[in-house]
Amino acid sequence: MPAPKEFLDYVDHNADAFIQRLSDAVSIKSVSGDPAYREEVIKMSNWISQQLQAVGVETQLADLGRHTMDGQDLALPPAVLGRIGNDPKKKTVLVYGHFDVQPALVSDGWNTDPFKLTVLPNGQLVGRGSSDDKGPVLGWLNILQYHHQNQKDLPVNLRCCFEGMEESGSEGLDDLVKKESQSGGWFDGVDCVCISDNYWLNTRTPTITYGLRGLAYYKVTIEGPAKDLHSGVFGRTVHEPMTDLIKIMGTLVDVKGHILIPGVDEMVPPPFADEKELYEKLDYSIKDVEDSAGASIALSDDKVEVLMGRMRQPSLSLHGIEGAFYGSGAKTVIPAKVSGKFSIRLVPPQTPEKVFPLAKAHVESEFAKLGTKNKLHFEELHGGLPWVTDINHWNYEAARTATRAIYNQEPDMTREGGSIPVTLTFAEALGVSVLLLPMGRGDDGAHSTNEKLDRSNFIQGTKLLGTYLYEVGAAAAK
Amino acid sequence: MPAPKEFLDYVDHNADAFIQRLSDAVSIKSVSGDPAYREEVIKMSNWISQQLQAVGVETQLADLGRHTMDGQDLALPPAVLGRIGNDPKKKTVLVYGHFDVQPALVSDGWNTDPFKLTVLPNGQLVGRGSSDDKGPVLGWLNILQYHHQNQKDLPVNLRCCFEGMEESGSEGLDDLVKKESQSGGWFDGVDCVCISDNYWLNTRTPTITYGLRGLAYYKVTIEGPAKDLHSGVFGRTVHEPMTDLIKIMGTLVDVKGHILIPGVDEMVPPPFADEKELYEKLDYSIKDVEDSAGASIALSDDKVEVLMGRMRQPSLSLHGIEGAFYGSGAKTVIPAKVSGKFSIRLVPPQTPEKVFPLAKAHVESEFAKLGTKNKLHFEELHGGLPWVTDINHWNYEAARTATRAIYNQEPDMTREGGSIPVTLTFAEALGVSVLLLPMGRGDDGAHSTNEKLDRSNFIQGTKLLGTYLYEVGAAAAK
Ligand SMILES: [Zn+2]
Ligand SMILES: [Zn+2]
Ligand SMILES: [Zn+2]
Ligand SMILES: [Zn+2]
Repeated sequence: MPAPKEFLDYVDHNADAFIQRLSDAVSIKSVSGDPAYREEVIKMSNWISQQLQAVGVETQLADLGRHTMDGQDLALPPAVLGRIGNDPKKKTVLVYGHFDVQPALVSDGWNTDPFKLTVLPNGQLVGRGSSDDKGPVLGWLNILQYHHQNQKDLPVNLRCCFEGMEESGSEGLDDLVKKESQSGGWFDGVDCVCISDNYWLNTRTPTITYGLRGLAYYKVTIEGPAKDLHSGVFGRTVHEPMTDLIKIMGTLVDVKGHILIPGVDEMVPPPFADEKELYEKLDYSIKDVEDSAGASIALSDDKVEVLMGRMRQPSLSLHGIEGAFYGSGAKTVIPAKVSGKFSIRLVPPQTPEKVFPLAKAHVESEFAKLGTKNKLHFEELHGGLPWVTDINHWNYEAARTATRAIYNQEPDMTREGGSIPVTLTFAEALGVSVLLLPMGRGDDGAHSTNEKLDRSNFIQGTKLLGTYLYEVGAAAAK
Repeated sequence: MPAPKEFLDYVDHNADAFIQRLSDAVSIKSVSGDPAYREEVIKMSNWISQQLQAVGVETQLADLGRHTMDGQDLALPPAVLGRIGNDPKKKTVLVYGHFDVQPALVSDGWNTDPFKLTVLPNGQLVGRGSSDDKGPVLGWLNILQYHHQNQKDLPVNLRCCFEGMEESGSEGLDDLVKKESQSGGWFDGVDCVCISDNYWLNTRTPTITYGLRGLAYYKVTIEGPAKDLHSGVFGRTVHEPMTDLIKIMGTLVDVKGHILIPGVDEMVPPPFADEKELYEKLDYSIKDVEDSAGASIALSDDKVEVLMGRMRQPSLSLHGIEGAFYGSGAKTVIPAKVSGKFSIRLVPPQTPEKVFPLAKAHVESEFAKLGTKNKLHFEELHGGLPWVTDINHWNYEAARTATRAIYNQEPDMTREGGSIPVTLTFAEALGVSVLLLPMGRGDDGAHSTNEKLDRSNFIQGTKLLGTYLYEVGAAAAK
């Protein structure tokens, strides 16, 4: 069931009004990470709620309590829950987005006022939140407006969960989602979830994302003398913590990215039959990787190997050392206590719980081999699960069909190298298929200066999300 | 020729007056490293010059020009040159000291006002510069006062070089010493040099120092992407500079302190016959090393090995990394450009010039082995020569005899692990024996809070320096 032509035409005809509404949204400085802007984020909660009500959606401002930020006790901006439709013959789709944004100052290097949406001649809509994630949230509003104004029923029952703390750890969201997923909650009866909050792999090809890597972040501390020592007085006299730590850090990963902690790479199954073809098909080249990194430093000339390295292999990065000399110049210190920081991006079936004992055992065994008199401490600072879902589920079929209809292209089916924690929140609380259906392009600069959303991505993206709902509706009829 | 008993008695009888003069000196806040105190350092130049004139010494305030510090154009505090005696039958001794001090604030953790000399019941004279290096400079003044007041000829011709920029790199001193060492200069005809600006090895045993380690400070830079990357997006996709750098840094030194750069350790000759006995004799134990480091982390249980590691072996310390994550917490960055800092303490016949090509070749060869696409840059940030001199020279015999006379002890004959750059300045400019004859103890805390000089070290140290001059005088008669 493709979306009605009338809907697609409506979107084209109302493009300027949609952009004006995006401009209104961008002008509210809903920076969640800065206490000074907290009132603006709360204002944004209300604005979204009112916009939803205006297009016939029942809403609730869900109180998330209070928290402490930069030493200040603050009210959390309420999440906005929305509900429209209750037809038992239809699928119930939960859509997620966030209306808070990253900080932005002209002095960071913006060419225009970040909180005034600027339409460039090339069609770029420049402003903080244009792509991350006000554009996608407003995409849903555009669709609802068409149905409300034209008194058309939606092809699905729709539930909304729009939050205002995503850029600050989604504080309070986990508990809310768990609570509302229970019988009688706002998310009771949800059949699938659609999250529009990531990006195409490139600037050309629409993308559907079905996996995310998890994370395990570790800190290896080596402690020796009671205070920093002078290398003239103590050099070649005592065991130096930096010498030990560098040896340990050197045993974690090789230059080609292979993880040297026994059992970590081995935990991941080899590609299933034809899996490599999925990567071969992706519209992304070694040149794209290197352009994006700004240097010819890809680990391989084989595109499949490089893309699998990012999407379906774990990776280990050494981030730095706390406690050592880090300034410019030449300080002759022997640091007393140094902590190496490294993290492993995880893929199924890896979990922080399964990897921690392997990492700990490896570090302790390498430390024991050194024969140093310094002391070792190993800890996990942070952990998050990886996620991969079934791309043959009707939820994904609907998104693929919608993409072909709007873009006349096969979507890139991707797994992201990073994490989007709310994905796991919904997958775990609801136990249904979760789909990541991005609106913006890979070069939107979500957390950078001069963030933009291309006009065509906003307009075609609105059509895509709407068509997706019709395709889900069609799946219900099967 | 021991010093006359009358001199020794005079020092004892005038101890309180000497301490009062030290108190006057400490009250002048001659911090050379802070532009705000520059006038105080210049005041100190004048004070020293006047004190010398008052005891019959001809002086000159040697203009060292101007320099820039913290963006300010400042006059350098003049060095104070002094001259007394011109008897061709006598040896001419040049004594060096400095009257500038390290910064000190009560808020750093001082128990008393650092610029008010506090005499503790245990005999400690607490105040900034008490030990480093106003105490020793005033030791020479005390000796001169005895001879001037009692109309006694000095046993030697004396030359003084007291500077006010030692704690800030002795700016201008090299050129001055070179100039004054020429025919007709203030240091023309000098037979030996005595520098009193270091410390006993412990708190019990007078020390004579005959060697210093040099330094070569290196920076290894690995550069990859054009900007810092997100480890989710780029982990296992590109060559990471930190991975490469940690591998390189791991090839420089082993956990036991052996330098792994081929040719560096090998450049140092094995101990000469009986040399180990010199270290065996030193009044210093493994426990002293570990007490001083605050942990049981000595590289060996063999005292000779540990002390030779500090004094007559090169050492390599890894100081830190510039450009990597260094804060607390868990930042998932792939740093774009990282620079490892390490230094090698050098001993003869090593020089920065001889070691640089070895270090560079090693780092480049290890880098080539990695097979990374990142880029390497290797540079020396700083270099200084090591120094060792003949302990059988009459200058050293004089110091040993004087030590036995005053302390009734054999001195510890030490080589320092660090550097005292003026030593090389004098050795090179004059080509005569340079002696390091410390006044203070190993726990004086020269650059720390609560710096002190023990009253007995000030008073007996004055006698030691005076007696040393008499023993040099005796050497002339031989
Ligand atoms: Zn987002
Ligand atoms: Zn974001
Ligand atoms: Zn000093
Ligand atoms: Zn000093």
